[in-house]
Amino acid sequence: MRIAVLVSGSGTNLQALIDASSRGELGPAQLCLVVSNRPGVRALERAADAGLANLVINHRNHDTRRAFEDALLEALEANGIEAVILAGFMRILSPFFVEKFENRILNTHPALCPSFPGINAPQQAITAGVKVSGCTVHFVDTGVDTGPIIFQEAVEVSPIDTAETLHARIQNLEHRLLPRATKLLAAGSLRVQEGIVSQHP
Amino acid sequence: MRIAVLVSGSGTNLQALIDASSRGELGPAQLCLVVSNRPGVRALERAADAGLANLVINHRNHDTRRAFEDALLEALEANGIEAVILAGFMRILSPFFVEKFENRILNTHPALCPSFPGINAPQQAITAGVKVSGCTVHFVDTGVDTGPIIFQEAVEVSPIDTAETLHARIQNLEHRLLPRATKLLAAGSLRVQEGIVSQHP
Repeated sequence: MRIAVLVSGSGTNLQALIDASSRGELGPAQLCLVVSNRPGVRALERAADAGLANLVINHRNHDTRRAFEDALLEALEANGIEAVILAGFMRILSPFFVEKFENRILNTHPALCPSFPGINAPQQAITAGVKVSGCTVHFVDTGVDTGPIIFQEAVEVSPIDTAETLHARIQNLEHRLLPRATKLLAAGSLRVQEGIVSQHP
Repeated sequence: MRIAVLVSGSGTNLQALIDASSRGELGPAQLCLVVSNRPGVRALERAADAGLANLVINHRNHDTRRAFEDALLEALEANGIEAVILAGFMRILSPFFVEKFENRILNTHPALCPSFPGINAPQQAITAGVKVSGCTVHFVDTGVDTGPIIFQEAVEVSPIDTAETLHARIQNLEHRLLPRATKLLAAGSLRVQEGIVSQHP
């Protein structure tokens, strides 16, 4: 299965996917394209270093979300992309885009959904004073961090945690779980029924 | 510290408190009174079996929430109660009541707040398809399951879980954490600042 990874920043989750791929841990998932909506980001370097096709589709150069997504879809189609992984991609995808790739877009969110959707989830967790947070790898639907959940794992929040230290521990989980979910997706092992994900080996 | 436990049903969390007390694990917390808003519940038998003063203040016999809470406050005052533990107590307490016992009311909720507030939290978790849930022991504020969090612990949700099996595993956590929080409260070891709970030995 031909996979595109969408990025906006440093790309540590992209790196986790690249590393998993080089260890042969992505099964039939093949990383074929990296697209960033921002130029000059570290994730693009990581893609180039790994020999992955990569390009920038700058949302600022498109007047509307639809125009941006049309350009994105064109790039995905030109590369025969069958599934999309959001790896720190900071644009919300419209229902138009999501429905084109129904149950074939994965995202990872640094909180235990449905808690703390949206940006700065680790800071939201610290501000709320929770004692447990974690990460969620899920299918993308038309909401913000609301789609069917594939994996969740918890981390303790300690009294001395900052948003940064908490986020770092959550990222360790993401780097393990996102490649695993990508492999299952590509293998056709994930089914979604009424919003519930089940695995079929 | 003289403690009242408010109940509405089977009283398994009350039993956990009674057992912890009999093992000397509640520190300066002294269980002095059990109040049920419903007659004939198992929790009242548990209280009687443990030799605890217990009474029914039936909310159905009071025309307004305020009248019910006035009767409750009267009973608490008559028994010199300094703090209140909600142990499966199914009435929402008004701001009037909560402010009388500010930061001296504990509750346990069978979910990882802020996820799944309100009733049937384990069923909410199953319906949402989360892979991790847990329990939250918290101070009661004027919202529903929103108060400052003392303890949280996570449990995995397995594909074969029902609301009942999940709830049973969460209750095991509650039975351990609610007595521990009660001890810390009575010992004056819990401080709340801007909604965040910290422990001071």
